[in-house]
Amino acid sequence: MKLNRELRRDAPIGVFDSGVGGLTVFREIMRQIPNEKIIYFGDTARVPYGSKSQETVIRYSEQIVRFLRTFQVKTIVVACNTASAYALDTLEKDTDIPIIGVVKPGAKAAAEVTRNGRIGVIATEATIGSQIYTEYIRELNRDVTIYGKACPLFVPLVEEGLLQDPVTDEIARRYLAELIDIDIDTLILGCTHYPLIRSTLARIVGDRVTLVNPAYETAKELKEMLQAQGLLNDESPSLGSNQYQFFVSDKAEKFVRFANSIIKYGILSAKAVNMEEY
Amino acid sequence: MKLNRELRRDAPIGVFDSGVGGLTVFREIMRQIPNEKIIYFGDTARVPYGSKSQETVIRYSEQIVRFLRTFQVKTIVVACNTASAYALDTLEKDTDIPIIGVVKPGAKAAAEVTRNGRIGVIATEATIGSQIYTEYIRELNRDVTIYGKACPLFVPLVEEGLLQDPVTDEIARRYLAELIDIDIDTLILGCTHYPLIRSTLARIVGDRVTLVNPAYETAKELKEMLQAQGLLNDESPSLGSNQYQFFVSDKAEKFVRFANSIIKYGILSAKAVNMEEY
Repeated sequence: MKLNRELRRDAPIGVFDSGVGGLTVFREIMRQIPNEKIIYFGDTARVPYGSKSQETVIRYSEQIVRFLRTFQVKTIVVACNTASAYALDTLEKDTDIPIIGVVKPGAKAAAEVTRNGRIGVIATEATIGSQIYTEYIRELNRDVTIYGKACPLFVPLVEEGLLQDPVTDEIARRYLAELIDIDIDTLILGCTHYPLIRSTLARIVGDRVTLVNPAYETAKELKEMLQAQGLLNDESPSLGSNQYQFFVSDKAEKFVRFANSIIKYGILSAKAVNMEEY
Repeated sequence: MKLNRELRRDAPIGVFDSGVGGLTVFREIMRQIPNEKIIYFGDTARVPYGSKSQETVIRYSEQIVRFLRTFQVKTIVVACNTASAYALDTLEKDTDIPIIGVVKPGAKAAAEVTRNGRIGVIATEATIGSQIYTEYIRELNRDVTIYGKACPLFVPLVEEGLLQDPVTDEIARRYLAELIDIDIDTLILGCTHYPLIRSTLARIVGDRVTLVNPAYETAKELKEMLQAQGLLNDESPSLGSNQYQFFVSDKAEKFVRFANSIIKYGILSAKAVNMEEY
């Protein structure tokens, strides 16, 4: 990648995900660097990416990058673990603006935090199958063992609103049992929906296990990168300037309902776009 | 629709669904008319349709019909409630072979079976939102009331294999509670995955409620239609003639695993095709 030197610090940041999950990353960016403008894209027509092939996920991600670049974004955050695992390398190669995924920052935090060298990763089937967390963590720290566990029911449970519920508790207990047995001391929430059931997960794994939230770590790394490149916006956007804009590939209404339930920022609206044009 | 008079009785039947759910319809066709050849297409790259807009579902369905017609199919079964609700009218208008959806046969059976005129429908959000069962049933019988209930967690629970499980019981009890309170005597399983948890649903609603399985009713209607048109295959296909062929838009392996778990017919295989070419 050759960096584009024309980037403006008041340009927006592009953030994308396969659907609503990336809003947990959006929320962290909003909190940690509140002066930035953000264009969020949720690929709600083609969600979930977790069950799709690498080829398909790359093709979709490339379309979305083309769409986000029509807004002259200064950087893009791939706020989706599957797309970060499958498409980040390809996107970085083909793009002249910085691109950040959610996997590396999460992996880095976990490698630093573990004491006993046993790290658990919970995520979708695709993220676990890709072994991407294992790969990144072991680049940083060869003395650790990583245990992956796919948890396909967590996303639908979160989207059904069962954030605090005995059913979610029971499913979480089943999914986490083997990781607890193996005595992990660090657990990566490797899917962007999972921070929304963080308190349930924390209760089940207990105090001895540190939870790593890649959404938080990604926003932190984004801030550091923008600072290092002189791209951090130092002035808050003028009033009425549409600081946050949301786009989806289908069903804006449902997206808005979910977004408003997790982001406390007035009432959000979203526009639908046809991705096959990009 | 102007019927194509060139159709051959030994031509295959096309069956499509957004993913694996339509296999319950495939299974009923296989049982009721065992001489027929079947081409099954599961749109696993773009599943689920249940959360997509009507426009998107029509576009996808048209691509799939074009794909199936490359096999000179004599009829097409839309084995997906969402696609039947959203796309059937458009497909019928544009195609010169008979097309059957799963909604009408299920609606017809329910309208005939109810004694107290209170019919429940459980399905995805899209099918419930479309009010399609209500519409069809009330065309046949104006003296009934239809109560729809979206059950978004059933599909992921079935796909996770929790067919007989206390969690599925608990979720089913919650979803069905209001339908039981309203005193329905008939319950339509308005999503193709639901016959796979039929025994759980039957136990929870109790003996006084008749379950209607649109997969079964659709295969029955298909057989009657083929007979009426002189298109029923009266000879069994020759040995080794590839009687059943499966195509998916992504991840054939995962599809095959699920298919083999619900259809007892040797080991099935599936081919992946890129739908954007159709």
